[in-house]
Amino acid sequence: MTATAPETTRALDLDPDAQDLLFREARTANAFTGEPVGDERVRAIYELVRWGPTAMNGQPMRLVAVRSPEARARLLPHLAEGNRAKTASAPLTFVVAADTDFHEHLPAVFPHAAGARDAMAANPGREAMARFNAAIQLGYLIVGIRAAGLAAGPMAGFDAEGIRREFLDGTPLVPIAVVNVGHPGPDAWFPRNPRLAFEQAVAIV
Amino acid sequence: MTATAPETTRALDLDPDAQDLLFREARTANAFTGEPVGDERVRAIYELVRWGPTAMNGQPMRLVAVRSPEARARLLPHLAEGNRAKTASAPLTFVVAADTDFHEHLPAVFPHAAGARDAMAANPGREAMARFNAAIQLGYLIVGIRAAGLAAGPMAGFDAEGIRREFLDGTPLVPIAVVNVGHPGPDAWFPRNPRLAFEQAVAIV
Repeated sequence: MTATAPETTRALDLDPDAQDLLFREARTANAFTGEPVGDERVRAIYELVRWGPTAMNGQPMRLVAVRSPEARARLLPHLAEGNRAKTASAPLTFVVAADTDFHEHLPAVFPHAAGARDAMAANPGREAMARFNAAIQLGYLIVGIRAAGLAAGPMAGFDAEGIRREFLDGTPLVPIAVVNVGHPGPDAWFPRNPRLAFEQAVAIV
Repeated sequence: MTATAPETTRALDLDPDAQDLLFREARTANAFTGEPVGDERVRAIYELVRWGPTAMNGQPMRLVAVRSPEARARLLPHLAEGNRAKTASAPLTFVVAADTDFHEHLPAVFPHAAGARDAMAANPGREAMARFNAAIQLGYLIVGIRAAGLAAGPMAGFDAEGIRREFLDGTPLVPIAVVNVGHPGPDAWFPRNPRLAFEQAVAIV
């Protein structure tokens, strides 16, 4: 599907098939089959990617897995028009959110730093930190969806405040992305866009 | 090293050894051996993770791979004191940056959207978009470092403006993270901190 990259393949420990599954052959899907995504699969994805590192082990990413017909009907009006048809075709859609009160879990998840919760409670940069680390976890999540043999369809075109009110009202969670999940349907792929060359993105000093 | 998770393992297509390599057994290293990380490895990591999706295929992440003794000496004073010894022990450290002018590449990387560059040039949310998508790519990068059989040591404790002036002055790049890369040295691991349970982080509706 993509140009093979034998040098890359050989320089990495990860099995070449896994490289393809997670990165080189994986694609953003724009249509899905009706095949459902079960609870066990959702749990397995989360239980894999939760091990990825975050600052202070804060793990601010939260997921609302929108799957029932009722919940899906509530989600669609808050998406950009161009994102509705593909989302309607997906068997499951993650609303990915950042928990701006992630510090409440620090005594449990970062137990050696006694004052971390209180210091973070008073930190005006806490929401930015929650969003930044949840975005890193979104990277892990997309890899994890692919690890499950499923296609991910991450989207930035949505009404964040509308989704917040619809699904997260009364919580400290703020939506940062919406990601369709499922098996790719007919005409799921747009032509693959080029990536920046090594020399355009990396300098060794 | 971690509790095995047979249900997770079985519910995913990715080989269990690869699940361990990338997530379950991979750890944030806090000390490194002197074994160098060569150009070929740096290139292979980038050429794998560049395929991960970003909004408008904007790919705002840029990397400065700090490796020479001179460059390392320039980096250390800008790190939080607690991050200096481990960074001094690492054979290579990525300064991970977001290109706030990523839109200049849109005609090449998002060619079907004719007006994208100009629209983004006038978009006051462009820097936030660059930082958000570079953070997603940072998630891919950490996975890619582990795919190379190396340990990653991501850090948030640094003087961003100091690093910007030292390594990125006169460019539209802003640092978002610093990540040590290498083979784990003696006493590289802190005790592993717990992760949030599925029920704490995910709701299915």
